[in-house]
Amino acid sequence: MEFHFLGTGTSAGVPSIGCACAVCTSADPRDQRLRTSAAIVYREPSTSHDGQDRTILIDAGPDLRQQALRAKLRRCDAIFFTHNHVDHTFGLDEIRRFNVVQRAPVALYAEEHTLRFLHRVYEHVFDPAKNINDSFVASVISHRLTPSLAPVDLHGLRWTPIRLLHGRLPVVGFRIEPAPNSTIGAPWLPLAYCTDMSALPPESWPLLEGLSTLVIDALRHRKHPTHLTIDQALTIIDRVRPRRAYLTHMAHEVSHAETQEQLPPGVSLAYDGLVLGSEIP
Amino acid sequence: MEFHFLGTGTSAGVPSIGCACAVCTSADPRDQRLRTSAAIVYREPSTSHDGQDRTILIDAGPDLRQQALRAKLRRCDAIFFTHNHVDHTFGLDEIRRFNVVQRAPVALYAEEHTLRFLHRVYEHVFDPAKNINDSFVASVISHRLTPSLAPVDLHGLRWTPIRLLHGRLPVVGFRIEPAPNSTIGAPWLPLAYCTDMSALPPESWPLLEGLSTLVIDALRHRKHPTHLTIDQALTIIDRVRPRRAYLTHMAHEVSHAETQEQLPPGVSLAYDGLVLGSEIP
Repeated sequence: MEFHFLGTGTSAGVPSIGCACAVCTSADPRDQRLRTSAAIVYREPSTSHDGQDRTILIDAGPDLRQQALRAKLRRCDAIFFTHNHVDHTFGLDEIRRFNVVQRAPVALYAEEHTLRFLHRVYEHVFDPAKNINDSFVASVISHRLTPSLAPVDLHGLRWTPIRLLHGRLPVVGFRIEPAPNSTIGAPWLPLAYCTDMSALPPESWPLLEGLSTLVIDALRHRKHPTHLTIDQALTIIDRVRPRRAYLTHMAHEVSHAETQEQLPPGVSLAYDGLVLGSEIP
Repeated sequence: MEFHFLGTGTSAGVPSIGCACAVCTSADPRDQRLRTSAAIVYREPSTSHDGQDRTILIDAGPDLRQQALRAKLRRCDAIFFTHNHVDHTFGLDEIRRFNVVQRAPVALYAEEHTLRFLHRVYEHVFDPAKNINDSFVASVISHRLTPSLAPVDLHGLRWTPIRLLHGRLPVVGFRIEPAPNSTIGAPWLPLAYCTDMSALPPESWPLLEGLSTLVIDALRHRKHPTHLTIDQALTIIDRVRPRRAYLTHMAHEVSHAETQEQLPPGVSLAYDGLVLGSEIP
């Protein structure tokens, strides 16, 4: 069972178009960051046969095609959306290829406001009768996360939405762990994935207890109205004490090598292509 | 003055996600095709100073960031849209970086129905008062192509829309040439760019006369309801006789090397990164 960091960059990506800064021109591949997204790839055990391969994405950003090719993703059973911003949703159309390969629709899980956004932006998918040509459009099944953010048990994993604040916009992170009675396991579970956040409301703190892994927003050192700084992320990490923490959604102010040196033990900058598997790197 | 083929692939790109065919696994970089888009990069002469650098895009597809980085595009003065499909419009958000670098908005030129589509999909850009956070959004100025498809003179170039049919959807190509009294010139002008088409209505044929360069849709060999086949493209090329023709928007059925061998003199498969400059390759 693997956790893939498909992208670890902020909304413009790193390098940024037209930028000649040290990070944007760095030769270190860890300084090249596609838009933040992740995938969990595993085999779902079965009592009746030898199991079913599963891939579940967190967000579908504009780099999804490039990310899927690089990680050699061959299917997509579901996508859990954190929120409706372009850098987390504008790759949804790429899943048409997964529909072809797996001959099945892709399940979408999102809050009501994100689903409304997807329906507006992807009208050709959700309201194909309006299409002028009989176009080949993505096949999806929408599932609404409940307003109370009840857990979703899917393919052996429990996904519990975590309320986060992304500036003034309420978004979600996810606590991911084996579903009750599931035989699935990985040393990096339970994992909480909290990108695009500037604050954690009181009710969300308990969902960050007892983690093996915390993935958390850390845009840069300088303050930002809708993202955590590296210091703010470290303060949260220090309070909830996961076994390991990975910072994500970094901007081009963050040099991987230089920043990693300054982080405390157990905390790493994530980078595109990093995979958590049977051993945690 | 340069014409850059930023992308020459069909809507899923080549390689396609989850595909192991010969072209999708080819080591020939010309078999790797991002979504179809192009750029014209030049210096606009001026009588009062030594000119102004200009970059004008045709379409803004989902690979725009990757394409802009590869072609080292440093600015974007305008985007001419052929139509509203995802593979031609879903990169518009990337121009925020051009706004930062050039400290000026980007001019958009499109037909009414494409502008309506952009306003719906990019509500956060066109109706920012609705945004929950004070977000950093793209700065654009929309210009509607007239229903009569009157030419647009911009920065020394004349852009004449060409009515094309993309299945049942009316779209446009563009005939690009020096504007009246412009001192701009390039051996590849006049150039007509006709991607995403299955038929050319009678009134459009005169706009393909006297071309130096014709860029034309050629999806694959097998018929398709909304795209030209290679043979259909060759029939049009044979009738209008440009000095050079380049095929674009190819699917993964088209091997570059094998297909190029079969093309008549003066006709080439375009490929990502191909640049027409002072000499036509």
